[in-house]
Amino acid sequence: MEGIVNCIAYCEGRRVANIDIAKIRETLLHKDTFVWVGLHEPGEELLKSIQEEFDLHDLAIEDAHNAHQRPKLELYGETMFIVLRTAQINSINHHIDFGETHFFVGDNFIVTVRHGSSLSYKDVRARCENTPELLGKGPAFALYAVMDSIVDQYFPVIETLEQKLLDVEEEIFGKKPTRGTTQRIYELKRELLEVKRVITPLIDICNRLMRFDIKRVPDDTRPYFRDVYDHAVRINEMLDNTRDLVTAALEANFSLTSISQSEVSKKFAGWAAIIGVPTMIAGIYGMNFEAMPELHWHYAYPVVLAVTFVLCIVLYIFFKRSGWL
Amino acid sequence: MEGIVNCIAYCEGRRVANIDIAKIRETLLHKDTFVWVGLHEPGEELLKSIQEEFDLHDLAIEDAHNAHQRPKLELYGETMFIVLRTAQINSINHHIDFGETHFFVGDNFIVTVRHGSSLSYKDVRARCENTPELLGKGPAFALYAVMDSIVDQYFPVIETLEQKLLDVEEEIFGKKPTRGTTQRIYELKRELLEVKRVITPLIDICNRLMRFDIKRVPDDTRPYFRDVYDHAVRINEMLDNTRDLVTAALEANFSLTSISQSEVSKKFAGWAAIIGVPTMIAGIYGMNFEAMPELHWHYAYPVVLAVTFVLCIVLYIFFKRSGWL
Amino acid sequence: MEGIVNCIAYCEGRRVANIDIAKIRETLLHKDTFVWVGLHEPGEELLKSIQEEFDLHDLAIEDAHNAHQRPKLELYGETMFIVLRTAQINSINHHIDFGETHFFVGDNFIVTVRHGSSLSYKDVRARCENTPELLGKGPAFALYAVMDSIVDQYFPVIETLEQKLLDVEEEIFGKKPTRGTTQRIYELKRELLEVKRVITPLIDICNRLMRFDIKRVPDDTRPYFRDVYDHAVRINEMLDNTRDLVTAALEANFSLTSISQSEVSKKFAGWAAIIGVPTMIAGIYGMNFEAMPELHWHYAYPVVLAVTFVLCIVLYIFFKRSGWL
Amino acid sequence: MEGIVNCIAYCEGRRVANIDIAKIRETLLHKDTFVWVGLHEPGEELLKSIQEEFDLHDLAIEDAHNAHQRPKLELYGETMFIVLRTAQINSINHHIDFGETHFFVGDNFIVTVRHGSSLSYKDVRARCENTPELLGKGPAFALYAVMDSIVDQYFPVIETLEQKLLDVEEEIFGKKPTRGTTQRIYELKRELLEVKRVITPLIDICNRLMRFDIKRVPDDTRPYFRDVYDHAVRINEMLDNTRDLVTAALEANFSLTSISQSEVSKKFAGWAAIIGVPTMIAGIYGMNFEAMPELHWHYAYPVVLAVTFVLCIVLYIFFKRSGWL
Amino acid sequence: MEGIVNCIAYCEGRRVANIDIAKIRETLLHKDTFVWVGLHEPGEELLKSIQEEFDLHDLAIEDAHNAHQRPKLELYGETMFIVLRTAQINSINHHIDFGETHFFVGDNFIVTVRHGSSLSYKDVRARCENTPELLGKGPAFALYAVMDSIVDQYFPVIETLEQKLLDVEEEIFGKKPTRGTTQRIYELKRELLEVKRVITPLIDICNRLMRFDIKRVPDDTRPYFRDVYDHAVRINEMLDNTRDLVTAALEANFSLTSISQSEVSKKFAGWAAIIGVPTMIAGIYGMNFEAMPELHWHYAYPVVLAVTFVLCIVLYIFFKRSGWL
Repeated sequence: MEGIVNCIAYCEGRRVANIDIAKIRETLLHKDTFVWVGLHEPGEELLKSIQEEFDLHDLAIEDAHNAHQRPKLELYGETMFIVLRTAQINSINHHIDFGETHFFVGDNFIVTVRHGSSLSYKDVRARCENTPELLGKGPAFALYAVMDSIVDQYFPVIETLEQKLLDVEEEIFGKKPTRGTTQRIYELKRELLEVKRVITPLIDICNRLMRFDIKRVPDDTRPYFRDVYDHAVRINEMLDNTRDLVTAALEANFSLTSISQSEVSKKFAGWAAIIGVPTMIAGIYGMNFEAMPELHWHYAYPVVLAVTFVLCIVLYIFFKRSGWL
Repeated sequence: MEGIVNCIAYCEGRRVANIDIAKIRETLLHKDTFVWVGLHEPGEELLKSIQEEFDLHDLAIEDAHNAHQRPKLELYGETMFIVLRTAQINSINHHIDFGETHFFVGDNFIVTVRHGSSLSYKDVRARCENTPELLGKGPAFALYAVMDSIVDQYFPVIETLEQKLLDVEEEIFGKKPTRGTTQRIYELKRELLEVKRVITPLIDICNRLMRFDIKRVPDDTRPYFRDVYDHAVRINEMLDNTRDLVTAALEANFSLTSISQSEVSKKFAGWAAIIGVPTMIAGIYGMNFEAMPELHWHYAYPVVLAVTFVLCIVLYIFFKRSGWL
Repeated sequence: MEGIVNCIAYCEGRRVANIDIAKIRETLLHKDTFVWVGLHEPGEELLKSIQEEFDLHDLAIEDAHNAHQRPKLELYGETMFIVLRTAQINSINHHIDFGETHFFVGDNFIVTVRHGSSLSYKDVRARCENTPELLGKGPAFALYAVMDSIVDQYFPVIETLEQKLLDVEEEIFGKKPTRGTTQRIYELKRELLEVKRVITPLIDICNRLMRFDIKRVPDDTRPYFRDVYDHAVRINEMLDNTRDLVTAALEANFSLTSISQSEVSKKFAGWAAIIGVPTMIAGIYGMNFEAMPELHWHYAYPVVLAVTFVLCIVLYIFFKRSGWL
Repeated sequence: MEGIVNCIAYCEGRRVANIDIAKIRETLLHKDTFVWVGLHEPGEELLKSIQEEFDLHDLAIEDAHNAHQRPKLELYGETMFIVLRTAQINSINHHIDFGETHFFVGDNFIVTVRHGSSLSYKDVRARCENTPELLGKGPAFALYAVMDSIVDQYFPVIETLEQKLLDVEEEIFGKKPTRGTTQRIYELKRELLEVKRVITPLIDICNRLMRFDIKRVPDDTRPYFRDVYDHAVRINEMLDNTRDLVTAALEANFSLTSISQSEVSKKFAGWAAIIGVPTMIAGIYGMNFEAMPELHWHYAYPVVLAVTFVLCIVLYIFFKRSGWL
Repeated sequence: MEGIVNCIAYCEGRRVANIDIAKIRETLLHKDTFVWVGLHEPGEELLKSIQEEFDLHDLAIEDAHNAHQRPKLELYGETMFIVLRTAQINSINHHIDFGETHFFVGDNFIVTVRHGSSLSYKDVRARCENTPELLGKGPAFALYAVMDSIVDQYFPVIETLEQKLLDVEEEIFGKKPTRGTTQRIYELKRELLEVKRVITPLIDICNRLMRFDIKRVPDDTRPYFRDVYDHAVRINEMLDNTRDLVTAALEANFSLTSISQSEVSKKFAGWAAIIGVPTMIAGIYGMNFEAMPELHWHYAYPVVLAVTFVLCIVLYIFFKRSGWL
């Protein structure tokens, strides 16, 4: 059936057999056996048969069918329903692509439902199968393994955002900031907000999984969720840090724009004076009065030129010293 | 009586009969029966008879009579009184129209009181009647159904606000920002604040309904309120996100205005120099000294013109390279 | 004695008699009887006799003597001491006048002490006496009635502040913002802070009165305090909303000032160019070179004038199109 | 021994005798007797003998020796160790001088250790001795008396800061704001932060003293600490209020600077036009074309002057109306 | 083996012997004996043998192998795993160098694992060995001693940051602020954020160690962790204070830049007028009208010069008084 990636039974952590959806109920009667079903954008019909096999709640199935959920953990009787969001840097436009993975976790089964652009969990499953003593802890360990891989995919995302911040910093302090800098800061903020919305509920989810109110998670598996929690908290801190720095960068950018504006005004004022003074003097000797004795002196012209020139030099030095030029 | 939209008795989730307000008490004596009364801006007299039939508290009736309550959930003995606010985008002026719906929920009755511009709940009632096995859970399920429809009406409102933000972003980064941009940002902020005031208490209400301190909600109905809660939280996140972006957009707008001001100053300074230099030179050769040898040279005029022109070109290139022009 | 407004005994909610302060103790021996004393800026002596009659704590009496307390609820053994602040819009200067009312509430007595410019509670008392079945609930109901009237007086205060905000908005977006606008925004902020300081502790007080840790409030009176609480929360929300909008208005004002500054610069630059170009050309033809062939051409003057004029027109159109003029 | 200000035994609130440090242990054997020791910047040796007499913890003694602690309350077994910070306005430079007082409070003793520029507690002790019925409540009352006096010293400090804010407001809105205004705002912020750091932990300390987890404080003394708590909260509110207003003042200052900058630009632009137009016209009639018919008209000069003058007047009126001049 | 700094057994607080990693298990069988192992960037193999000797959890060992953990306290069964970050000012570039120390603390052992540029704990160990009565309290005291030394190393770091703030303040208010000032403020913010990220979790860790939920810490050792907690809180307050002041400094810087911009504009406007007026007058008398009677008056030239000069003086005085020059 389309949408099924895998449906495998495990006994004491060891892969027993690929089984058919319809045979799940039967398989689960064996002791120490659990079933791990992997789905990818399943159709309604497939979800319906899954619902029947595992006795899932209508609302959870409805959620699992629609993507665009926020990360959450919900208990429906004996079954735990978890929504996580995945993120990857799109290698072409360097934006972040978000996907979703939903989990149904019961006493002896785990169903993962992937939506959107997330990586396959084949590798995760392979790694789990390599450590049967751990996978033997049951579906909660499989849940941990997938969550861990999802959370680990966030680190490169954050690092890309941190790199974007460094680029912006260099633009601000190294080169001249432009309109583009402001836009890049804005877009960085937007992306940080998007990732933040994904990470914050994840911390709550891990928090609940590592505490004692959720019976689906055996005691010896809790430290693993604490590990995921720890990573999520670290990602969150990196995000907050980057966000605070982006805010500071915007302020610095603003402050530098203002200083630069001030510098332009000073430079302009300085040069305007240096051009304005000779213009004024020239204007005076351009007057047409009959009786202007200086006009008739022989060296008047070079003297006036020289005086004007000296005046300009004096002005130049004065403005240079005042830091206006 | 004016103000009554509907007054129907249900038995095991199935519609039994339209009944008269005065016969409610009598009807409620039947086992597994509940009454769903729908009112629209009821008069004082009608509310009084409702109060008598269901034994409601004075203060709740007073509140139900006046619109302009904030969303809240209050327990008066056995009866739960809930106020919710509805929102719709006005199709004419694209502003948000707010309305109010109040609920009285008891063991075997639910009264909905609509105020202002909210949609009728006919469709909701019809959908409920199509799933008698769910409506059989009692008045709490009817409450859920109406709440769910109210909360779902918020999504288009938020999407309109998000679209307004996108328009503002385009104005800021694409075209030149104007005074109108600032005003639009301000109005967007105002609308976001208004919606926020409606959504935040709604989350608390859902939270209480899905936890165990409210006995009116049977255990198997709680997951439905969790679903509403989930939607409310998502709306709230979308709001917060939009609000953060509006703030960032205002800053970006501000930053760009400042950069643009700086650019104007630079351009002006550059052109002022390019016009100022020939003016100064012309002034000098406009002086009336008798002894100005250059004046008598034959090619002085074209040479001075050429020199001045070259100077202007040099200045132009200089300013161009400095990014001032 | 000066400072006593009223001292009345009630039995089962009905007024029994005006009594003397000295006879209070005696009166309170009757079953189902409580005493309601109203004081207005009482002297030390009067407070002392009140203290003796009701066995009040030194610290509470000290507080009741001095105005300028912050709103609070304190328990001294069996007696509850409450401080509330009242507010009214001064009809002359449109500022807010604050007053204070203190309450001592015991099992069978309530003392209200008014300070500063608050309204008399005569009307409240009259309304209470009209509903003896409610006043029969005891001093807690009298407390509710006065608190309710105090809180209701806040609504016009908030509405005045909201109106001031609307005026500021109109100044900002409609007319040109001036120095006065900034000052009005500042003063609005100051007033909002003042009211906020009064409302926030009020919410806590109501919260305690409607919960179960205060034994002075009988169970059937609690819903009334929840009603006051609800009003206080609404006032608080209106305040927060107005404060957020004032902040946004300040930013908008700032942004518009900056845009307006930018517009001035652009306009100035444009006109400076339009005036500068003819000045430069005129300067060139004002030079005194002997050999300037143009000077001798017959139509040179009108041609130059025309060319200059056309240049100015071209510049004008150019700047107009760029949005600089 | 240097550093001892006082060491007095009290019985039932009445002063019994000045005693020697070495005799404390012996004195404390009497029933209903407690010892109040006052130290001022004690040496290590003195602290050691105090430690031995009262059996104090090493870490507390270490803290008491070094000033520059943050306000805190710590329990070491039976003994309570409290650090408070005192504040006074320096009458010379109008800055705030901070000091410290440490307390060791046991069942039958209290030790106060003053550091830095705080007032002596002689007056407090005298006042306590005047009300032996209160001092008879034990060391906790002595603690209250000193704390109350410390907290009361904060009110003039806050009032000084509020006065500084009023001065800044007047500078901003009344006179022209200068660089000094900005610096004064900055310094006010710094001082507010300093006082805040002292007050916030004080509230926590009072809070703990008035609740039931500290056994050293008898029940009938708790209301007194609630009184101190109340004062601390009021000081804290005044601080927060002042801080919010300082922030608003900075924004207002900034906004007004920007408006003032805009006004300068407008004025300059207006006058530049009024000077620029005659300069341009004069330039035109200063051109040396042979064929300029106007030059030969007899009234050309006065006519041109008059036209220019009228133009300037027109410009002046235009700019005046536009609010640019 | 490389990576082992020390491995010493202590009995009743006294050093017994340097022992081999392989003999730890054997040694721990003695009563009242504990082992303190010091590692520095250990290899995988060494960590493996440590894990075996002390029965440590896989996840903790994995963490201990990789540096770049965030500070945390985790319990794995009987063993406590703690990560702390160390900080020092790099004496060359005045930046902060961060390192990490991990601890495994059991009933009778403590393992410290240093990563990166942190100081050796030789001195700490020496000081502990000098007070065997304290070290006799067991591994928790050794943990305290190392934590205390780590936290004490933060004080010079904070003081360096505070000094950087003072330098920035001086630049802002004393000298003219430049682009460098803005960059220094930004870098200071970055460093404050980095230290903050290290200190905040440290407070939580101390908090848990001084409360009663961690059994590894005996009761008489808790006050020591309260001491560390106290230091951490103080560092945190200093950080927050510095951060608030940096924000205020940025605003002040910004405000002063704006005022300075305004001053430049005023100065420029003033001088432009003083130069512009003579230029205009000179232009008028440079016109070539035939009939300009003034031109023929004998004293016209000196009179015009004088009038112009006086006008300039008047303008100068006017602008000086207005505060524009």
